[in-house]
Amino acid sequence: MTLYSGLFGDADVERALGDEALVQAMLDVEAALADALADAGLVPTSSARVVREAARAERYDREALACEAARAGNLAIPLVRQLTAAVEAIDPYAAEAVHLGATSQDILDTAAILQFRAALPSMMAHLARAEGAAARHARRYRDTPMSGRTWLQPATPVTFGLKAAGWLDAIDRSRRALGDAADGAFVLQFGGASGTLASLGDAADRVADALATRLGLPRPAAPWHAQRDRLVRFACALGVLTGTLGKVARDLALLAQPEVAEAAEAPSPGRGGSSTMPHKQNSVASAVALAASVRAPALVASLLAGMPQEHERGLGGWQAEWSVLPELLRMTAGASRAIADALESLVVDAARMKHNLDRLGGLTQAEAVVVALAPHVGRAAARTVVESACRRASADRRSLAEVLSSDPVVTRALAPDALARTLAPEHYLGQAAATVDRVLAATGRAKDADA
Amino acid sequence: MTLYSGLFGDADVERALGDEALVQAMLDVEAALADALADAGLVPTSSARVVREAARAERYDREALACEAARAGNLAIPLVRQLTAAVEAIDPYAAEAVHLGATSQDILDTAAILQFRAALPSMMAHLARAEGAAARHARRYRDTPMSGRTWLQPATPVTFGLKAAGWLDAIDRSRRALGDAADGAFVLQFGGASGTLASLGDAADRVADALATRLGLPRPAAPWHAQRDRLVRFACALGVLTGTLGKVARDLALLAQPEVAEAAEAPSPGRGGSSTMPHKQNSVASAVALAASVRAPALVASLLAGMPQEHERGLGGWQAEWSVLPELLRMTAGASRAIADALESLVVDAARMKHNLDRLGGLTQAEAVVVALAPHVGRAAARTVVESACRRASADRRSLAEVLSSDPVVTRALAPDALARTLAPEHYLGQAAATVDRVLAATGRAKDADA
Amino acid sequence: MTLYSGLFGDADVERALGDEALVQAMLDVEAALADALADAGLVPTSSARVVREAARAERYDREALACEAARAGNLAIPLVRQLTAAVEAIDPYAAEAVHLGATSQDILDTAAILQFRAALPSMMAHLARAEGAAARHARRYRDTPMSGRTWLQPATPVTFGLKAAGWLDAIDRSRRALGDAADGAFVLQFGGASGTLASLGDAADRVADALATRLGLPRPAAPWHAQRDRLVRFACALGVLTGTLGKVARDLALLAQPEVAEAAEAPSPGRGGSSTMPHKQNSVASAVALAASVRAPALVASLLAGMPQEHERGLGGWQAEWSVLPELLRMTAGASRAIADALESLVVDAARMKHNLDRLGGLTQAEAVVVALAPHVGRAAARTVVESACRRASADRRSLAEVLSSDPVVTRALAPDALARTLAPEHYLGQAAATVDRVLAATGRAKDADA
Amino acid sequence: MTLYSGLFGDADVERALGDEALVQAMLDVEAALADALADAGLVPTSSARVVREAARAERYDREALACEAARAGNLAIPLVRQLTAAVEAIDPYAAEAVHLGATSQDILDTAAILQFRAALPSMMAHLARAEGAAARHARRYRDTPMSGRTWLQPATPVTFGLKAAGWLDAIDRSRRALGDAADGAFVLQFGGASGTLASLGDAADRVADALATRLGLPRPAAPWHAQRDRLVRFACALGVLTGTLGKVARDLALLAQPEVAEAAEAPSPGRGGSSTMPHKQNSVASAVALAASVRAPALVASLLAGMPQEHERGLGGWQAEWSVLPELLRMTAGASRAIADALESLVVDAARMKHNLDRLGGLTQAEAVVVALAPHVGRAAARTVVESACRRASADRRSLAEVLSSDPVVTRALAPDALARTLAPEHYLGQAAATVDRVLAATGRAKDADA
Repeated sequence: MTLYSGLFGDADVERALGDEALVQAMLDVEAALADALADAGLVPTSSARVVREAARAERYDREALACEAARAGNLAIPLVRQLTAAVEAIDPYAAEAVHLGATSQDILDTAAILQFRAALPSMMAHLARAEGAAARHARRYRDTPMSGRTWLQPATPVTFGLKAAGWLDAIDRSRRALGDAADGAFVLQFGGASGTLASLGDAADRVADALATRLGLPRPAAPWHAQRDRLVRFACALGVLTGTLGKVARDLALLAQPEVAEAAEAPSPGRGGSSTMPHKQNSVASAVALAASVRAPALVASLLAGMPQEHERGLGGWQAEWSVLPELLRMTAGASRAIADALESLVVDAARMKHNLDRLGGLTQAEAVVVALAPHVGRAAARTVVESACRRASADRRSLAEVLSSDPVVTRALAPDALARTLAPEHYLGQAAATVDRVLAATGRAKDADA
Repeated sequence: MTLYSGLFGDADVERALGDEALVQAMLDVEAALADALADAGLVPTSSARVVREAARAERYDREALACEAARAGNLAIPLVRQLTAAVEAIDPYAAEAVHLGATSQDILDTAAILQFRAALPSMMAHLARAEGAAARHARRYRDTPMSGRTWLQPATPVTFGLKAAGWLDAIDRSRRALGDAADGAFVLQFGGASGTLASLGDAADRVADALATRLGLPRPAAPWHAQRDRLVRFACALGVLTGTLGKVARDLALLAQPEVAEAAEAPSPGRGGSSTMPHKQNSVASAVALAASVRAPALVASLLAGMPQEHERGLGGWQAEWSVLPELLRMTAGASRAIADALESLVVDAARMKHNLDRLGGLTQAEAVVVALAPHVGRAAARTVVESACRRASADRRSLAEVLSSDPVVTRALAPDALARTLAPEHYLGQAAATVDRVLAATGRAKDADA
Repeated sequence: MTLYSGLFGDADVERALGDEALVQAMLDVEAALADALADAGLVPTSSARVVREAARAERYDREALACEAARAGNLAIPLVRQLTAAVEAIDPYAAEAVHLGATSQDILDTAAILQFRAALPSMMAHLARAEGAAARHARRYRDTPMSGRTWLQPATPVTFGLKAAGWLDAIDRSRRALGDAADGAFVLQFGGASGTLASLGDAADRVADALATRLGLPRPAAPWHAQRDRLVRFACALGVLTGTLGKVARDLALLAQPEVAEAAEAPSPGRGGSSTMPHKQNSVASAVALAASVRAPALVASLLAGMPQEHERGLGGWQAEWSVLPELLRMTAGASRAIADALESLVVDAARMKHNLDRLGGLTQAEAVVVALAPHVGRAAARTVVESACRRASADRRSLAEVLSSDPVVTRALAPDALARTLAPEHYLGQAAATVDRVLAATGRAKDADA
Repeated sequence: MTLYSGLFGDADVERALGDEALVQAMLDVEAALADALADAGLVPTSSARVVREAARAERYDREALACEAARAGNLAIPLVRQLTAAVEAIDPYAAEAVHLGATSQDILDTAAILQFRAALPSMMAHLARAEGAAARHARRYRDTPMSGRTWLQPATPVTFGLKAAGWLDAIDRSRRALGDAADGAFVLQFGGASGTLASLGDAADRVADALATRLGLPRPAAPWHAQRDRLVRFACALGVLTGTLGKVARDLALLAQPEVAEAAEAPSPGRGGSSTMPHKQNSVASAVALAASVRAPALVASLLAGMPQEHERGLGGWQAEWSVLPELLRMTAGASRAIADALESLVVDAARMKHNLDRLGGLTQAEAVVVALAPHVGRAAARTVVESACRRASADRRSLAEVLSSDPVVTRALAPDALARTLAPEHYLGQAAATVDRVLAATGRAKDADA
């Protein structure tokens, strides 16, 4: 674990994506290939057994692999050399069974798929936690009014439940899209030097099928050495999910501002402090998710930019991918964990939401007043009256309620209790609750699964 | 049509995305809203009729809209003002029916969806052409050998049919993924000021359903003013498709180099010339698709970067989207058209493919020789023999065939005709034809639909 | 002016970058080339005069240029054709003087440089306005305390002058860097077909020098058809400047939140309203600058990605540049204008700054209390005392001041007036004023030039 | 060294940027701060000595730092805690001297600057090697004709010296711009909690000056916690340089294609092989530089996107930077080393350049023929003649020379030896040699420094 992967990442994901896991994944592909060759009768089962025995990452010198790879141009070449030597040390004859039929990219691509597959469940579990927590907030605060905010300025009122339902809806959609993209991307890469598997002769088909079965990966219609669309689609799904998590983080960070103070990540020891200011409670989870959402777009763009790869296997575009997808997964996983933690521990202050609404002095109700006045004076006139009242309220630092109460056009149309009702945010929530219910139903979270 | 959209774009797509189309799409949403309000009984049908009458783009002054929008902050505000005035001029009372219940973003987002929906069919038609042409090449050149090329260096032989099948497979996948993303993204935006539709009171639900029906767009569980994932997923699909088309373009441009000369866009008058060199036949279609593939990743990244939008409607992130998605569609459409044209007109030179293979003097067969020697001397020894022969061939500027023919280890193992056969690319094509067949079957193009 | 360039751009910049300006810039290069050929004695002066006469943009059919360019692959080819025809119509012999020695890219690149050079002054004027306004705020509010805010949480106090000085410092630096990059990038492109100017024979050097002189552009050591670093460096400078303006916008948008309300763009008619909410005063300028800062990074990335252009002139990378740099300039210019307007009209509420500080109940002074206590109890113990007081204040919803006043460790060390002084933000401003003065001096704005 | 940093990076750069170096750089800043505090008389010199004694990276548990940092939100907090404990273990009183006056970001930003400063010389040395080698090629092949290539199609001839001079010119410019950007960016970060250094009282100025002196970094007019323009400008310079190196790599990879075979990276054992094809000599250096040029744009874009950081210190944007700049440096350094190696070892085949020119059958001379014919028949007619000859040559698969020799319009105007001379590329090189000389002079490399 590097210092930064520790800071941003998720320990389980890191285990799946780290250097030792990479070496092991490559060895797993080589071992499965030896088995598949045995299945197809090309090598003795005993040779395949020796390959598998030698295929244990801890036996390999990663520093040497890195150095040799810099000359060779990829990691598979030195690993195959070391693996062959290890197999030979056990049984010289078995070395004939190593890497037969494959090209470096078959091993590297399939190993990457194995790593990504291993990294996914932990991230999906974080997302399930995040969705569960968002659903709980949506249910609990379904009818709790708060200021709507558009362009960072007050808008008509919403409920905190509606905001949480919006998060839930988007995370749910993005998680499912990620699952679909993973299903599409997690396929076998096996084509040999140029994608024809020519070195395996007539046995090619049998070996490829056996390898796919052994690794639990579908075998696609054609190798994809220079057709990277499936992988990039997976990356895009990670990118969209990270953007969605970044939106949650942005909202949380804004709500946690002391001047707003409507919701905040729960304080805990050692969390979000400062090296010099003893009072600090920083929104660490939001920072992690926002940082991820700053980085993810560019990581996705790298992969898109690398797509026009030359002929049967590319020069530059493929090599550029190698560390980008793991880094992107790290970012998305870190953001998933962070948002799950933040939503699960979120301290919501409904009273402060009401207080902030009240302090706006009726501004959020300006549209409601237009709606209420319109039947009496027409919509255009109603709007003019309210706009002018808003201007006076701002100029005189009075509340809109106060200004309206002393406007004869208004008082003629609306009795005091009707005006009061119009100025009450809790009576101008429209479809908020219905939308919460629709989202909960659509995401299968109408009831708390944990309750 | 601007100078650059003319250069890169597609005329039909440009018609759907241009400024007049944008104004008309916004007006179409306003007119449909008036109808929906009438459906729900909130305004008279006659008022809705007046709104629709006034909702014709050619009546509106785009220069004035642009100027006013710069102050207002968006295009909907001045358009609603102009539309209201136009309606009032016909029937003052009908003005009450304009824009009731909606916010600017409802109009802008839904109008954008209508534009994108209108732009799609032309692009899809280009892609169908591209796939049809790729399939024809795949069938026709299923067994035509050419040099495989990896890292831009010779690899084991492939067939031109295999290369074309790879293009077909990836375009087909990317086109279907785009269709799915469009289905997911083309939904109604209608939430009013903060997403609650509060100004429509109890009628909100009915109006929203009627509006969705009238526009032929599904109504989602919740408004998506600040949840942009669906739209960005659509953008990602455009990006991946453009990358896929860029890969085809890269291959074509490399094949068209005079030193390779295996395939080229057909020359035609006024196409790909030079302002000073009379002999020039530039690969214009490849240039268009490659340029699109340089631009698309960054356009996608912009949209991903804008996702963390604040609260109910964002400040900056949303506004950044406005011209990006149309620009991305332009790029993808231009690339689709270009690749369809290039593949349909492609001049393929199978004889030159053979000639280029021959000039490599057997290099593409090095692996084949190892495979053939291995049963006689073991795989490791076979590889050593061939590596050393390759080095000698390169040092002495002789062909590999020549060097091998004079190597006693080789001649002892392989009779002259066996060696000759091993050195013949057409006998070392492995799964090439089978892969072509699999791809044609998977994409439903085993037979020529036009035949 | 397109709808979106109206919304984001600056009218002067738009005039320099629009389609008519592009055609005129290309014609200006052609006319200057004819003059230079005459200077070098290759063509008669009278022919050059005819070329210049024909080189007026309004004569050319842009729709036809766009269509023809789509086939030709670039705009110069059809323009040279139309120009040649126009010249021939006046004087057939003069047509020999058109475009002699040049390649399309010479014209397109140099025309782009002319356009960018024309667009710069208006942007620089906006930046000067922005810096002037920031400097005025820095001087006026040099000693006005406000809450420092780090990670969007309260930090030790700053002054509004310090914040404004930070903006000034960064804009000044970014503007000067842009000027330097423009000086480096605004050079002649003139190399002919492959960069050798071979078609001009021995006169090449003289023609190139004369052309450079006539256009007022330095002639570089070598043509730069496929070496785009200067141009991309200019783009990077635009990108960094836009990021700097985005930072100002972010601060302004956050300060304008009603719960903070410390500064806001001045309201004005037709500015920042809503299509449905009559009370709205949206931060339009901030939205424009933030949107620009979302888009600029990707536009810069496109240009960087297009740099590896093939051989003497590239395929794809160059073509991708064409609309990106103008779009980036539009974004930066729009952001410059917006921030200049916002800072010039900014309504600052110093009383609210004080009020917000007071409402924090001493939290911003936590570090100050540690500093004051440290000499009495040691730094580590002081920190422990204050951290525990912060926790109690938060738990009991009391002010930190109140909690500290009842803590015997504190009261033993600090007399009531010493504690009161420690808790007063205006006594804990450190280097704020000195930093303001340093920045004003460094940017040459110690005094108001307008005063 | 991770597996991928081994593959792409440069060992010296990796040493400067690795995790141990990061911890040491942070400790170096803390130690220098203690010294500066002693210089200013705030702490005893003996305490500073103890801090320095404890500030040795090998004492610190990086795994624990990573874990604690994930909770704390940054690396400085746990490191300061561990450092304080280490100091206390030696002399409890000295702990008062640790981190006094600083905030976490002061340490992290300044440490990053120290790391970047340490990484630069090795990269600059690679660039000097690359420039030296490019200059040698420019001098040696100053007059060696080769096909010009534009849009990947044959253009008028150039010389290999001209191509190399283009590389030299651009690398030289990009290296110098990087040096300037580094000078601008390598400044002290020291502002305390909110940039006012308030906790140091009157001594703040003295401490800041002393710290700057001790670290050898200029002290800027203001802290730059949320003003990241200098750093991003440095990143942009790295990005532009990487693009420049990518352009060299693209050219090299294209020249090394076996069908072109005009220049290639020298083969060496263990370099550029294949795991299955014994003949392979892949262009590993080009792959490394091209991969870097695919990745760098997005890394730069990340940093630009993170610039709009909130108030005194940002939430998300800053945190996103942490691993991006080191990764970008790695990429640029790896590309610098790769291109230096490639250019130094480049095997150039001037005979093949001539052979390829000859095989084009005069196509590169089409413009030259127009120039030669123009005085006889007029430029327009000359162009028509040659265009038609080109078309016939292509249709009949004859050489342009042959077709022209049998065209009476041509033979009437040009005697056989004049036509032959016109068709000789070596007589149509225009300013190639002069440009080489200008570039060599401008870069101070007219003579070989090693000669």
